[in-house]
Amino acid sequence: MSASRRLDELIEALQIMPGIGPVSAARIAYYLLDRKRSDALSLSDAIAHAVNEIGQCPCCHNYSDADGELCSQCASAKRRESGQICVVESPSDVEAIENSGTYHGTYFVLHGLLSPIEGIGPEELGFDALIERMSKDKVKEVILAISQTVEGEVTSQYLAALAKKLDITVSRIASGVPIGGNLNSVDGNTLALSINYRRPFES
Amino acid sequence: MSASRRLDELIEALQIMPGIGPVSAARIAYYLLDRKRSDALSLSDAIAHAVNEIGQCPCCHNYSDADGELCSQCASAKRRESGQICVVESPSDVEAIENSGTYHGTYFVLHGLLSPIEGIGPEELGFDALIERMSKDKVKEVILAISQTVEGEVTSQYLAALAKKLDITVSRIASGVPIGGNLNSVDGNTLALSINYRRPFES
Repeated sequence: MSASRRLDELIEALQIMPGIGPVSAARIAYYLLDRKRSDALSLSDAIAHAVNEIGQCPCCHNYSDADGELCSQCASAKRRESGQICVVESPSDVEAIENSGTYHGTYFVLHGLLSPIEGIGPEELGFDALIERMSKDKVKEVILAISQTVEGEVTSQYLAALAKKLDITVSRIASGVPIGGNLNSVDGNTLALSINYRRPFES
Repeated sequence: MSASRRLDELIEALQIMPGIGPVSAARIAYYLLDRKRSDALSLSDAIAHAVNEIGQCPCCHNYSDADGELCSQCASAKRRESGQICVVESPSDVEAIENSGTYHGTYFVLHGLLSPIEGIGPEELGFDALIERMSKDKVKEVILAISQTVEGEVTSQYLAALAKKLDITVSRIASGVPIGGNLNSVDGNTLALSINYRRPFES
């Protein structure tokens, strides 16, 4: 316990962040108080604004400042005409794919994966909305960009079955050795996949 | 850039914390939005409350919730009667010493060290207030618990000179090998000090 109750409360509250334990939290708390306190107030405001104002795009379920309105990607006629929906687990995945600059279709963000143990079923992930989009829009391909964990595989299988019923092609992003990756630092499963799914060498 | 301006602002603001770069900030931002948003709002409130409400004890300059009133340590007659003032660099040092449970005197927090390059002189560190306390209160000993860096040594020398003028004993906390410490992991300067200041073995 420090000399100030408010300080103790701050140290406690900082620990809700991932990767921040009691020691880091105390260090951050003293830093925020010692340095420019105006910066700390800006941080407080930024958290409150983000939490209160960030909603979801009704079409792709990605984060959006204008809750209830289409996000820029869903509003783009060009992207919709591509007939592609890339299904991802979280909004940060959308950002990562956008940063790669190769994909020009639309997205669907699940905000989680199927997990009966945690009580997360198709409803929680918004599958209804996805099925509606797949049926109404002229969707040709569903690209699964979901991690290959147990929950990820269950979710992918479920989605693939739904898409096949509607005669929509289902694909998954390629697994393999990262570019510049050292074979020694890649796990055996990934390496096995990269050998099984080898491609003709283009010279 | 993500899909939301508010999210970008949050990621930017999170980076004022020490040890938090762009990647950690993005991870924390998505975490705060994905999980219980009420926790994130509590964090926002805790930062605002701490920044707005935490002031300083007028006597020891440590953080205190009641700005302008004596902190519990300075208000304690027993601690004042000890005639000891332990001078430290930051409020976290007070907490560390209190947690050790050995010291029962009062403190003085400098909130920094003398640094002519950064424009930090005796005024910025509140030396006037410390001199006043040393002259008025029946202070017998000033204990320097200041890091032995260049700035720390300059500050310690300066304070020692002030205290000697007032006929007050000046001491410094012991340097040496931490208990349970491996000699290989201790730097040469510390090891040299621990040999020079060796004590008679008590058996």
